[in-house]
Amino acid sequence: MKQVLILGAGKSSSDLIAYLLDYAKNKSVKLIIADADLAVAQRHVGIHPMAEARRLDAGDDSARKALIQEVDIVISMLPAFMHITVAKDCLALRKHLLTASYISEEMRALDPPVKAADLLFLNECGLDPGLDHMSAMRVIKAYQDKGFETVSFKSYCGGLLAPSAERDNPWQYKFTWNPRNVVLAGQGVSKYLEEGDFKYIPYHQLFSRVDKLSVGGVEYDGYANRDSLSYREVYGLKKLRTILRGTLRRVGFCQAWDVFVQLGMTDDTYSLAWTGDLTKRKFLNAFLPFDPNDSVESKLSRLIPQSQDAAIFQKLAWLGLFDHEVITPSKKTPAAILQHILEEKWKLNAADQDMTVMQHLFEFENKQSTIKVSSSMVCIGENAQHTAMSKTVGLPLAIACKLLLENRLSLRGVQLPIYEEVYDPILDELETLGINFKEVEF
Amino acid sequence: MKQVLILGAGKSSSDLIAYLLDYAKNKSVKLIIADADLAVAQRHVGIHPMAEARRLDAGDDSARKALIQEVDIVISMLPAFMHITVAKDCLALRKHLLTASYISEEMRALDPPVKAADLLFLNECGLDPGLDHMSAMRVIKAYQDKGFETVSFKSYCGGLLAPSAERDNPWQYKFTWNPRNVVLAGQGVSKYLEEGDFKYIPYHQLFSRVDKLSVGGVEYDGYANRDSLSYREVYGLKKLRTILRGTLRRVGFCQAWDVFVQLGMTDDTYSLAWTGDLTKRKFLNAFLPFDPNDSVESKLSRLIPQSQDAAIFQKLAWLGLFDHEVITPSKKTPAAILQHILEEKWKLNAADQDMTVMQHLFEFENKQSTIKVSSSMVCIGENAQHTAMSKTVGLPLAIACKLLLENRLSLRGVQLPIYEEVYDPILDELETLGINFKEVEF
Repeated sequence: MKQVLILGAGKSSSDLIAYLLDYAKNKSVKLIIADADLAVAQRHVGIHPMAEARRLDAGDDSARKALIQEVDIVISMLPAFMHITVAKDCLALRKHLLTASYISEEMRALDPPVKAADLLFLNECGLDPGLDHMSAMRVIKAYQDKGFETVSFKSYCGGLLAPSAERDNPWQYKFTWNPRNVVLAGQGVSKYLEEGDFKYIPYHQLFSRVDKLSVGGVEYDGYANRDSLSYREVYGLKKLRTILRGTLRRVGFCQAWDVFVQLGMTDDTYSLAWTGDLTKRKFLNAFLPFDPNDSVESKLSRLIPQSQDAAIFQKLAWLGLFDHEVITPSKKTPAAILQHILEEKWKLNAADQDMTVMQHLFEFENKQSTIKVSSSMVCIGENAQHTAMSKTVGLPLAIACKLLLENRLSLRGVQLPIYEEVYDPILDELETLGINFKEVEF
Repeated sequence: MKQVLILGAGKSSSDLIAYLLDYAKNKSVKLIIADADLAVAQRHVGIHPMAEARRLDAGDDSARKALIQEVDIVISMLPAFMHITVAKDCLALRKHLLTASYISEEMRALDPPVKAADLLFLNECGLDPGLDHMSAMRVIKAYQDKGFETVSFKSYCGGLLAPSAERDNPWQYKFTWNPRNVVLAGQGVSKYLEEGDFKYIPYHQLFSRVDKLSVGGVEYDGYANRDSLSYREVYGLKKLRTILRGTLRRVGFCQAWDVFVQLGMTDDTYSLAWTGDLTKRKFLNAFLPFDPNDSVESKLSRLIPQSQDAAIFQKLAWLGLFDHEVITPSKKTPAAILQHILEEKWKLNAADQDMTVMQHLFEFENKQSTIKVSSSMVCIGENAQHTAMSKTVGLPLAIACKLLLENRLSLRGVQLPIYEEVYDPILDELETLGINFKEVEF
């Protein structure tokens, strides 16, 4: 009987686990669900006959190895920095590995021994990265087969709120994935290629240089992700004149977020000092010039003129940034304090539905003509447990696991889901689960 | 006969070496001047009876140690990262050490063994840091002796051009010290204290948040240096409500430099890619949005509205940034390419006079009253060899060396020039050399 180990049973594992529990019921497959908090793992397992919950401190080398030794396939939902440790165990113990995280240089370096051991370490098999690779490659392949070259590829993705959950919140945004990553998103320089020109956007310009997009009748702003250039090679697209990967936000979000960036509130490299209790207003004032005759509100307006815009000012005020409310963040970097303030206000309620949105924009060329194609996906979550984020991250992984269990994947080595053998059955099954891409030539 | 070793005979060592050559003639002291380029060292030494030029690759451990072994005092004008290596040699071989560079944590850690060995490692004994410490401490001490507490201390310094050399250049600026440090200046966050409030300025705001100053009838803008807060402890000023250290530039410089910062042109963390030859215009365009119907000039105006200001636009145009001129920088980071462009245009001509400017602004309080005091220094260079920078960096070091040679310094350990015993004789002699501070109560 084959066994699967899921490392990490947090919120984003919900639909991955649900799918595999359901699958295990009908097949002779055993699931082990391990988490640092046994109760969290147990809540998923319940009285399931083929599943078992285990407590695991992932940093405990011998406990982790012993657990991995028991199974055939490991799915790591641990924090990304842990994947390489798990990967080395999997290689030593001859187990397949699946993750939804970006492939690291260290992970990539394992390719030859992983291939030699006849194993598959499939990475970037979640939402973004993952579903973006699969859905883009399917469209690209279809047009390649018709004799077209891909000359332009822009791809945007966002973890957002369903319209029903946006109403009580002027930001139209709540945290549906790692809050720290949301606060730090975009730091460094963003690199892309447009009509043959290499373009570079520094972080402090990123949120004011957005593209306008429309997906399913809703308007979005898209800002460029860190390094789009490397995807020319990943997708094997050498003739590209344009490549850009970006993040989607509801219109107005980026302009308001830019106030935090302009002020320096997302810096995670140093700790703030203050005297007495820290209030939200004092936090804001630390980034404003001293002026004995002027209020925080008016100093902000002078320093960051865009903050005078009523829609932006309202967003800041709704977070309480002008209030004398005392806060007690556990860390003292500007980014950690901002995250502390946001987490209280941007928490999903139990009934809140989230939404993941993806849009690819292609231009294909042959000798005669140019075709523009868009491919768009909108997935709406059920509630704060079974989120769209959990579905779109977890289901591709779950299906990849099923394919491996059923010996339907011949691919070996350290890989991404950019091969038909992987993405075709995953995308086909995702459609039956309500995750589908609408393709339009225009 | 006592011997002194000067490591590094580059431009900023000119006046240090000239002073000590002059001193050595009349006393029984021998000077060894070592440089990676023997000819550079020889040009200083000429036919001087008491001095010797040597070739030294400072990275060659045994050669460096052998040279240090020969002398009693080492003055390191090497790049700052080399000081700790030299310091460890000096400790092992029981030699005094003088530098004009910021004390590093590693250097500070040597204090106990340096004291135990009865040695002085005097750091930050140049212009800034150095002359700023000495001149500020003298004023602070004078008011302390009269029963006043220091409650506010702002200190600004700039390496600039004398008015005579400013005329051919709309920036009114040329490189008078390490160009790379000028390009990277201010990166990270600037921290200061104003009227009891801790304040933080992110790099991308630094050059638009300047203070207005007037020194000797000339107007300047001052921007905050990285970490002003640590100087409360250095100067032993615990009651300070305000402390700010800043850099001076001629009015208009910061606003124009801010265009580079806003564009991301001072980033030294990644390399640019381009196709074909690199031109200045292509370099600028890499930081501007793509628009097939718009010129570089007009895209810049839209992205950075301040660049439409005629005085700013003229500065950019004077550098040739809008030209199709091919450039061949040796490194490809944005900062290195910008430096390459600036070095051609901001090079001192042989007859150019530079200028160093310093201004301290104090507020002293006793139970009855508050006194405001300014203390200002302006030093004008002779030409591109004997610059004000070389004088104000090198002469304090040279005088400190003389004091050591004459057994007039009892201070031992890893130190800064913040003690009367050090700063009094140095400041007194600097006055006779034309470097003096004008103090005004206002």
